[in-house]
Amino acid sequence: MSGNKLCFTKMHGCGNDYIYFNCVGDSIENPEKLAVRLSDRHKGIGGDGIVLICPSELADAKMRMFNIDGSEGKMCGNAIRCVAKYLWDREMVRKEEIHIETLSGIKTCWVHAVEGLADTVTVDMGSAVLAPAKIPVNLAGDVIVRRNTEVAGGIYDITCVSMGNPHCIVFGEDPDGLDLESLGPAFEHDPLFPERVNTEFVQVLGPNTLKMRVWERGSGETMACGTGACASAVAAVLCGSCKMGADIVVRLRGGDLVVNYTEDRVLMAGEAREIFEGSVEV
Amino acid sequence: MSGNKLCFTKMHGCGNDYIYFNCVGDSIENPEKLAVRLSDRHKGIGGDGIVLICPSELADAKMRMFNIDGSEGKMCGNAIRCVAKYLWDREMVRKEEIHIETLSGIKTCWVHAVEGLADTVTVDMGSAVLAPAKIPVNLAGDVIVRRNTEVAGGIYDITCVSMGNPHCIVFGEDPDGLDLESLGPAFEHDPLFPERVNTEFVQVLGPNTLKMRVWERGSGETMACGTGACASAVAAVLCGSCKMGADIVVRLRGGDLVVNYTEDRVLMAGEAREIFEGSVEV
Repeated sequence: MSGNKLCFTKMHGCGNDYIYFNCVGDSIENPEKLAVRLSDRHKGIGGDGIVLICPSELADAKMRMFNIDGSEGKMCGNAIRCVAKYLWDREMVRKEEIHIETLSGIKTCWVHAVEGLADTVTVDMGSAVLAPAKIPVNLAGDVIVRRNTEVAGGIYDITCVSMGNPHCIVFGEDPDGLDLESLGPAFEHDPLFPERVNTEFVQVLGPNTLKMRVWERGSGETMACGTGACASAVAAVLCGSCKMGADIVVRLRGGDLVVNYTEDRVLMAGEAREIFEGSVEV
Repeated sequence: MSGNKLCFTKMHGCGNDYIYFNCVGDSIENPEKLAVRLSDRHKGIGGDGIVLICPSELADAKMRMFNIDGSEGKMCGNAIRCVAKYLWDREMVRKEEIHIETLSGIKTCWVHAVEGLADTVTVDMGSAVLAPAKIPVNLAGDVIVRRNTEVAGGIYDITCVSMGNPHCIVFGEDPDGLDLESLGPAFEHDPLFPERVNTEFVQVLGPNTLKMRVWERGSGETMACGTGACASAVAAVLCGSCKMGADIVVRLRGGDLVVNYTEDRVLMAGEAREIFEGSVEV
């Protein structure tokens, strides 16, 4: 081996795993190319992408994220929780509220520490948007709640929510029995959704408990989707299955998230875990 | 984080990736449990399993490997090349021939170094066994070479070889077009193979060049299978497509392997790559 060694930290939130680089001191060249190479799960470090923790003139820190294909992502609720943990655990920022700049604006996080280290983190995911044209979904009306609709080659009662990206929520029985490999793409590419759609298949387990599987546009089924968990909780409130202002537990394949929906914002709390530290030749 | 930190090295041979631990000084407790936890590709380090590099009273070193499910593996041609590279690069063993103890006996490796570091490694994979009862396959005769057989719900010309584990080789067009998800299990569980079978779908690209996809019993499709590459090259010699004693290039999804088949042994050469080093809390 020859060349530079870069130190990194592997972290995950509900199994949504990224490779984190501390760029407060040193910057990283060509992060797009690095993301493609390092995300490879057999010949690289393996992950859903890389995250750069950078200085910010507007907030406590700036998060930049690059996906497996090298494209820059705007925001990820699971990744930003890990960034908050990184800043807290290393005593780079020790404040009750941590503000992190993203391509979707400045986000607020609250760290819940156990024995001095961040255990779970709550993040303000912004407000839920319900107007069909803004989601966007090609249906009339002010909101789409349990609307009986011809979609994805069948008839479904759908609820539509934007959390900055479009979501279609379908309530039903245990989603473990569903064939997401065929259902997911049928929803994603239905002409009803001009910018495609993320689809959540949700079972109501109890008063404020949901079980969810998600098909993400462009990614397929994933272990956890923060905006999807938020959208599902919002949809459950709109449908009367859950209460506004209550802590709603959303059980995803990768772990649990707790969502709290009020008119003006959606809070999401969940684990942030450090897995290992390493160094790689670049 | 609290507890012990263990240092490790992530390496791969043709995309067959393991987490390597130097156990020459310190031993590792409960490797079965560790393999399950660390192999997880989202919440662990990620890999096809863990490999312990241990002292040996019989050879230069001993390799112990534990699969994703925690079971102990006997031998892996891609992993042993990485062990040889590890020993060579760290100057733990600097000999022309490196002998490594495995649960399948003592194996011989030859390191091909570039600028002082191991680049490719050749390993003696032992001899090919052709007698049907020893493979085992429930067919009569001394060898099974392009035998027209009713198997896996169809009629195929099959060739059968054991490289310590059973292989069934099917020659045909470009294997990229095949539906391995349905074909693989149909071969694996056909009553013709009392101990199930690994199946290789092979295209002859040139005089001594093969393209192969493999379905491994118990694992499904994998990027690279060392014994499968050897068995395919042996089968190609038996069928007259390749020459005994020649270097046969086998193109797998994870990279190229070079196989040389003579009556008494099968040599396999390929890359061994170090990806990164790290430390993990255990």
